[in-house]
Amino acid sequence: MKRLLIAVSALAAMAAQADEGMWQPHQMPQIASQLKAKGLELDPNSLSSLDKFPMNAVISLGGCTASFVSPKGLVVTNHHCAYGSIQFNSTPEANYLQDGFLAKTYGEELPAAPGSRVYITESVTNVTDQVVGAIPAKADGATRYQLIEDNRKALVAECEKADGYHCSVQSFHHGLEYYLVKKLAIRDVRLVHAPALSVGKFGGSIDNWMWPRHTGDYAFYRAYVGKDGKPADYSKDNVPFEPVSHLTVSAKELDENDFVMVAGYPGRTNRYRTADEVKYAFTEFYPMAKTLREDLMDIIKATAPEGSDARIRYENTLAGLDNYAKNYQSMIDIYAKSDFQQRKEALEADLADWLQQSNKRQRQYGESIDAMAKLVAESQAKAQRDVVLGYMRYASAPYYAQRLLRLAHEQQKPDAAREPGYQERDMTRFGEGLKRMSRRYDAEVDKAIFAYMLKVYADLPASQHVAVLDQFFGLQNGWNEKAVMAKLDAMYSNTKVGDEATRLAWMEADLTTLEKTDDAMLEFAKAMYDTTMAMEKEEKAHDGELQKWRPRHMQALIAYAKEQGKPIYADANSSLRISYGSVKGVEPRDGMYYTPFTKVEGIVEKESGEWPFNAPAEQLKLIADKQYGKFVDSQLQSVPVNYLSTVDTTGGNSGSPTFNSKGELIGLLFDGTTDSIIGDWDFDETRNRSIHVDTRYMLWVMKHLDGADNLIDEMNIVY
Amino acid sequence: MKRLLIAVSALAAMAAQADEGMWQPHQMPQIASQLKAKGLELDPNSLSSLDKFPMNAVISLGGCTASFVSPKGLVVTNHHCAYGSIQFNSTPEANYLQDGFLAKTYGEELPAAPGSRVYITESVTNVTDQVVGAIPAKADGATRYQLIEDNRKALVAECEKADGYHCSVQSFHHGLEYYLVKKLAIRDVRLVHAPALSVGKFGGSIDNWMWPRHTGDYAFYRAYVGKDGKPADYSKDNVPFEPVSHLTVSAKELDENDFVMVAGYPGRTNRYRTADEVKYAFTEFYPMAKTLREDLMDIIKATAPEGSDARIRYENTLAGLDNYAKNYQSMIDIYAKSDFQQRKEALEADLADWLQQSNKRQRQYGESIDAMAKLVAESQAKAQRDVVLGYMRYASAPYYAQRLLRLAHEQQKPDAAREPGYQERDMTRFGEGLKRMSRRYDAEVDKAIFAYMLKVYADLPASQHVAVLDQFFGLQNGWNEKAVMAKLDAMYSNTKVGDEATRLAWMEADLTTLEKTDDAMLEFAKAMYDTTMAMEKEEKAHDGELQKWRPRHMQALIAYAKEQGKPIYADANSSLRISYGSVKGVEPRDGMYYTPFTKVEGIVEKESGEWPFNAPAEQLKLIADKQYGKFVDSQLQSVPVNYLSTVDTTGGNSGSPTFNSKGELIGLLFDGTTDSIIGDWDFDETRNRSIHVDTRYMLWVMKHLDGADNLIDEMNIVY
Repeated sequence: MKRLLIAVSALAAMAAQADEGMWQPHQMPQIASQLKAKGLELDPNSLSSLDKFPMNAVISLGGCTASFVSPKGLVVTNHHCAYGSIQFNSTPEANYLQDGFLAKTYGEELPAAPGSRVYITESVTNVTDQVVGAIPAKADGATRYQLIEDNRKALVAECEKADGYHCSVQSFHHGLEYYLVKKLAIRDVRLVHAPALSVGKFGGSIDNWMWPRHTGDYAFYRAYVGKDGKPADYSKDNVPFEPVSHLTVSAKELDENDFVMVAGYPGRTNRYRTADEVKYAFTEFYPMAKTLREDLMDIIKATAPEGSDARIRYENTLAGLDNYAKNYQSMIDIYAKSDFQQRKEALEADLADWLQQSNKRQRQYGESIDAMAKLVAESQAKAQRDVVLGYMRYASAPYYAQRLLRLAHEQQKPDAAREPGYQERDMTRFGEGLKRMSRRYDAEVDKAIFAYMLKVYADLPASQHVAVLDQFFGLQNGWNEKAVMAKLDAMYSNTKVGDEATRLAWMEADLTTLEKTDDAMLEFAKAMYDTTMAMEKEEKAHDGELQKWRPRHMQALIAYAKEQGKPIYADANSSLRISYGSVKGVEPRDGMYYTPFTKVEGIVEKESGEWPFNAPAEQLKLIADKQYGKFVDSQLQSVPVNYLSTVDTTGGNSGSPTFNSKGELIGLLFDGTTDSIIGDWDFDETRNRSIHVDTRYMLWVMKHLDGADNLIDEMNIVY
Repeated sequence: MKRLLIAVSALAAMAAQADEGMWQPHQMPQIASQLKAKGLELDPNSLSSLDKFPMNAVISLGGCTASFVSPKGLVVTNHHCAYGSIQFNSTPEANYLQDGFLAKTYGEELPAAPGSRVYITESVTNVTDQVVGAIPAKADGATRYQLIEDNRKALVAECEKADGYHCSVQSFHHGLEYYLVKKLAIRDVRLVHAPALSVGKFGGSIDNWMWPRHTGDYAFYRAYVGKDGKPADYSKDNVPFEPVSHLTVSAKELDENDFVMVAGYPGRTNRYRTADEVKYAFTEFYPMAKTLREDLMDIIKATAPEGSDARIRYENTLAGLDNYAKNYQSMIDIYAKSDFQQRKEALEADLADWLQQSNKRQRQYGESIDAMAKLVAESQAKAQRDVVLGYMRYASAPYYAQRLLRLAHEQQKPDAAREPGYQERDMTRFGEGLKRMSRRYDAEVDKAIFAYMLKVYADLPASQHVAVLDQFFGLQNGWNEKAVMAKLDAMYSNTKVGDEATRLAWMEADLTTLEKTDDAMLEFAKAMYDTTMAMEKEEKAHDGELQKWRPRHMQALIAYAKEQGKPIYADANSSLRISYGSVKGVEPRDGMYYTPFTKVEGIVEKESGEWPFNAPAEQLKLIADKQYGKFVDSQLQSVPVNYLSTVDTTGGNSGSPTFNSKGELIGLLFDGTTDSIIGDWDFDETRNRSIHVDTRYMLWVMKHLDGADNLIDEMNIVY
């Protein structure tokens, strides 16, 4: 074993550089030889065509990834990506979250949570010249920001003239390149099937980021369109969308070292940040944010006791808070044990040396180094305040009151001049957000959250206080619990923002009407408005400066990295990417090895009868009886549940189809191991592992436990 | 990796039966071919000679195992086996427990804790006939018990006519065979060297039973004898004992699958218990005892706060309580997940069938099955009371008062008629126990322990109460906290049992003197005496019945097992045994694999700066600088710390020399993995693993960190 482990490690070390990277589809021909060498049997060039198989079957749900798995618009994604929709349809009487859900016919399918979308990327066009080509070098930050925003808006507006499309201009390499992404946006999305919580979220937050893992993290949606085949609002008359391509689902053998590829929409990485930014993130931001999340969870749990209706409303919020509290803690721990900071600093020293070796380089990039240092320091000076105001949004009542007032203000401008998020194109989502609040809001909990955040704010250094907020809550002379609570009691007693009809009416109301409306939360929004706008303006000017200097800084990093033979791919930005690697175990710490596959017997090992280790009794019986059906793996002599791979992924990749060398669906990516969490900043060649749910487990549960034969029949499964 | 794992598992499954067993040395020729096949290069027959190398270098410390590693009586054992002696010599000013200890010369060596012994087994003789040969089949329990005890005592008395020897008659297969074990007992034992606590107990109770492990669990004693070479009490004039043989210490390469063998004194296993006994143990005894241990720990910690002198006195007690609280919890957990109970019951059903298939078998063994069932049920009826009274001994004041009064009673009889433990031969140990109490006693803590145990006793069902105890503390009408505490306050205020000189004087006093002595703890002992004796008598009669039937039951089990080709070795009974197997990793649960070796870099991974993960700074620096010296493993490219093997061991094996195929010392056994804990009852062929500290780690720390060159020079080390 020891010999083999060493061999594996050495191999991994050599291969890792090749496995690093979240590649833009148009880059695939550039790395074709690597892909072929690794085992890809598809033509690598075919992966750069978004309108061809398999890329045209890969879709975004906005925040998660999914894929089409039938000619009738059947969509598979993670259970945790459909969690909100399952919760949305659950009541104490029909608790689909707890018990699972299966529509046996189209008619039984349920509307997904408001705002649910299926986005199909149809084209990605380089528009760098149109966005920044004409901006004078000397433009100040505010001007630059505004020009970029205007140019982006114009491109988006032009693109969205096509009905049913959602367009965006996405920045790559932090403003070095811009791409116009055009997506078909299907807005009638329905819930088709989800396993019981004790399958789909087996292990719960205890197992989150962990290995060994035994989570059946899958669920099914269906995309519906109007009879004309075009995106439409929900209607009984809508028909299933018929995608050009859909994936074949594999129930075939899969082994360690087999080629795997993931296509999806990774959210955000920070692989090219400066050493100062890294230091701030790991020693200031993450510790603070982690504490805020834990405290918010405590407050929600205390105010909404288990079993209460209020608790059901906050399950989604709690899951999100917990997920990232754990994530941040792991990041902090791994950072503390690693030499990441030293390497970042060494890289910057090396880069500085390299720049100094050539006048030309110095001329091209030298100024950007100093400018970046100055801009980063400026951001950090107000950073605590920004974190606290950011987390204050967990209090929905003041948040939506502010959003609604802002909307009324924005609507006084012509559409194109409005802030993104407040344009006509955003109004459907805006309204759905207002509706969603009804399912995720409880006034008592909201008040407790707001009170806690105000206390945290009050404890900030004076330099980070906002005068108008101090004044509104009487915080000029420090925290006065009694006074603040009295104020909050009055605010929550005298607001209708908790009422859905009122919110929707306010969305339609003009500014004058809102100004006159006597509502305590609106009063708060009005009091804050000017200051909020001024702070936003200041931030935009700062961002404009960053938009000037960070691309140049990136150019320097790219030029330097290229000389080192390091892979060059852009930081994740929620655009469609491809990662590849292989199924592989890992030695997470000295003396321990994670084998690449788990099997159903591991569920029995973890089973305790209590959430989150309370597998369904029928499932335990199937396992005890070795009822593996067609889904047994010949080497494991059991049904595989989850597996590890070396693919480079991050949040947003959740639900991503995992392909074998033939482009068949062999799993859904749903997580990374703890050691991979810092991968958002620093890809560790030997430790990074993604976690996938094996399609064989998914099919086994569907077939043997949930009786989802209708879906099994609908999909094209190869055995 | 997967393929290899399967291959390894299959191999382990085949090999496990061969690796199971704690063999008596005289059995080694019977299993010679297995040993040779497994890799042993020594002559297997040589292992049955206790007076020859290497067995004559293997010694007992009474509860732990050790071995001679120099011609001058240098002894190596576990740090946790020498813990009491290191603690005994530690003060807040010279905290050897914390900082480690190294005697550079004989003169600097310190006396071990009172009662410390080095026992060298010189002969083991089958005396079954002398013990039970002449007992009439119809003798009742009390008679049988007494006859066996008398015969054993006579054999021991005869054996101990030889000066400086400790003899015992040990029962094998629960009374089926008896062996007379003759051991040279060296009673001047001195502490030579121990690493710092943060090496010797790195990981503390958190890592106890755990893997990956990084514990430097070793320490050195030296055996001293009088100038005539015979055992003697401590004296400055004593000289180092010169053993006939001592072990060569290996710093050579060791790899997975290499042959390993352990010789030692495993304490107790229960591999041949009845299904009823198993059920009671796992569903009643362990849960109750675990709770008692945890509660006692809480009470001690609350009464003796961290940093207090009282806490230092109880560190040893706390470590012992914690060790087995964890052990019991793991047993309960593993049992609950396993099919052990079902297998036991199936075995009994099969055995019953097998007996019924033959009149002869039925005649030979049939009666024993029913008799055992009846006797086991009788034991269980009073079992809770026995557990509680057993744990009451953690209150030292009443315990020693009772011991001393009992001694005075026993001393009225001729020596041979006295209860074992109260004979002349026991008096040195008895006195040392009284002295040791001085280091491990605090009246306030003792009172708190006694109060807690009385409360637990009071809560027992009435059927398990002891009238005289109820009466003494006024418990006839239930628990009265105030009254009991007042009584205890009075008892502890009016006793001198906490005073060492008083205890030693009482040890010498006759019964009349003690009867007249007005001491509150002695009053308690007097009140309890008759009842305690009556209960003991009852228990002996019951044991006498078991001594009649259990050997026959064992005969049936042996006959049946032999037919199945199962290995036949006696349950552990603290006698010298040999286990063998190989270095091997294990898959402790689905998706995870324990690699067989840990390395020093794993210490850095665990390092937190806080106990128990606070490795010495110099050690961390050595690791960072890769100062591996001669102790680097070519495959690990580092210094190995601990390793796993398949050898069958249990408590009492701690400190056991681990031999390679040539009989060189390659490590010290110090623990088992969590999954092996139930091995005391049920040897799991695939999961059982022992944990050893690698001699290369020991030597590396001694050489590079502790500068123990004098000891390294004294030992014979092969590189």
